Amino acid sequence: MKRRPQPWIEAFAPATISNLGPGFDCLGLALTKLGDSVRVRRAIAPGVTISAIEGDQGRLPHDPTANTAGVALLAMLDRYAPTAGLEVTIKKGLPLGSGLGSSGASACAALVAADAALGLGLGHDQLVELAREGERVACGAAHPDNVAPSIVGGVVLIASVAPLRMISLPRPEKLWIAVYTPGCSVSTAAARAALPARVPLDACVRNAARLGMLIDALHRGDLAALGEAIVDELVEPVRAGMIPGYLDAKAACLEAGALACSISGSGPTTFAFSDDEARARALLEILEECFTNHGVAGKGFIDQVGGGARVSSAPLH
Amino acid sequence: MKRRPQPWIEAFAPATISNLGPGFDCLGLALTKLGDSVRVRRAIAPGVTISAIEGDQGRLPHDPTANTAGVALLAMLDRYAPTAGLEVTIKKGLPLGSGLGSSGASACAALVAADAALGLGLGHDQLVELAREGERVACGAAHPDNVAPSIVGGVVLIASVAPLRMISLPRPEKLWIAVYTPGCSVSTAAARAALPARVPLDACVRNAARLGMLIDALHRGDLAALGEAIVDELVEPVRAGMIPGYLDAKAACLEAGALACSISGSGPTTFAFSDDEARARALLEILEECFTNHGVAGKGFIDQVGGGARVSSAPLH
Repeated sequence: MKRRPQPWIEAFAPATISNLGPGFDCLGLALTKLGDSVRVRRAIAPGVTISAIEGDQGRLPHDPTANTAGVALLAMLDRYAPTAGLEVTIKKGLPLGSGLGSSGASACAALVAADAALGLGLGHDQLVELAREGERVACGAAHPDNVAPSIVGGVVLIASVAPLRMISLPRPEKLWIAVYTPGCSVSTAAARAALPARVPLDACVRNAARLGMLIDALHRGDLAALGEAIVDELVEPVRAGMIPGYLDAKAACLEAGALACSISGSGPTTFAFSDDEARARALLEILEECFTNHGVAGKGFIDQVGGGARVSSAPLH
Repeated sequence: MKRRPQPWIEAFAPATISNLGPGFDCLGLALTKLGDSVRVRRAIAPGVTISAIEGDQGRLPHDPTANTAGVALLAMLDRYAPTAGLEVTIKKGLPLGSGLGSSGASACAALVAADAALGLGLGHDQLVELAREGERVACGAAHPDNVAPSIVGGVVLIASVAPLRMISLPRPEKLWIAVYTPGCSVSTAAARAALPARVPLDACVRNAARLGMLIDALHRGDLAALGEAIVDELVEPVRAGMIPGYLDAKAACLEAGALACSISGSGPTTFAFSDDEARARALLEILEECFTNHGVAGKGFIDQVGGGARVSSAPLH
């Protein structure tokens, strides 16, 4: 039976904004417009074979043990289907090293497609645990703050990393987000290495209080308070200097009425919040102009908070 | 008209549990059963005269510039009624140096009584700003995490200290709290001096994530998650050693099914949470036994989250 060609199953996993202000390493949200698509089918040979990667300008490894999607799938087979084999093709919709959870999205899409192909029916916790294994290859740490929202959708708080404890928060339906990726790259590993090992206790208290305020704002649907809470004095000061034009862009956005403006992940993608679609479009133009003026023109879009990774092609199990 | 004797107005302000787990310096709640009562009446002589203090074993200063209630009232007169005079009597219902917000409760009760006596009609923010001035005398820092819940009631997050930004959170109506004050004293100033100036970034992240979980749990009315979030790796490790028997008591409470057990304020008062009144009573007995075994027998009670400071005698304005 395994000799008959198996059907391809394609899944999509969204880009994510992580390190949401005071939520460094513990809070992220899923976008809708960008993401990676991965096709998976059962294969005769056990293990994982990555047969094609598109949209990465040849930068990603086909060796499954070095590829985030490959590593996540190998972990899935190891734990849940040790004798199975998978063939995989990856279509990157996300720019690499952008701070939008590119490495995580491939792993999440691959896992959701493979889960369907193998009929495993894994839950969110299990999928995120597997996707984290991919993150370990990508950035040296199995941080779940990108893969959790990419799998679950909406806004996700990682209340605890070990054991994994994810909390799905009320989705801010009326939030509009301008997302702009300047044309420079920031290595996640380098951005992480630049972080302070210790922080002042009072800054730590202020950060926790702001995260508390942010969670409260989500529950109350208070976008103004949500924006007010998006202040990061722990990592933004270090990372701002790695993104030419960031501080200018942030000041301009806030002056133009953004509810908040900060760095997504380790950057260079910069996001700005608004409660209004037209305002978000204006903020995107401001981001475009500021970064272009600093010689790092890139590209952007406006978006809203969206759902998690899902199968995007029949047949479903 | 000012020569006629003016009526006394009495106000009550509740004890508070502050430093709630991950909410060091930013989260507190009001209790119902213990508190300070302060009587205030208008006097002819301008300024503040403290004519009597009961229940303090003679330990509190009558000089208003050295007494938390006096300082708070002087600040009130300075800002809102510069020519007025107040006579004050204080009845301490709260043990001093217990970690239950004793210094703050006197200031809060005094302010609420004086607000009524002077007909000022101040709001919560204004009262908390004044009460903080009292805290500056008591512990060297104008921390609002005791006075905010004592004024506002319920559970209060201090989202920002300057400018003051308080968030009143959903009250956990079904929460029962065993509160035990061992017979030893911890100086707030000494407890604060023992704190680390800097903390590891990853501990800071875990702390913020737990506070986020706690706020989410309050909004969802999930007492189990609330308890799970009450973990403090920043200050408890330092302060636990200042309270004989604390670690034993905590272990025994958790083993007996407490949802959480931690230190209130800078201690030595220890609290344990339950979703059940009978269980809370059993936890109180456990606390009593553990601290007695360690030679620091004290006293305790079971309680629930309650309202804020209020006038407890007619006439109201």
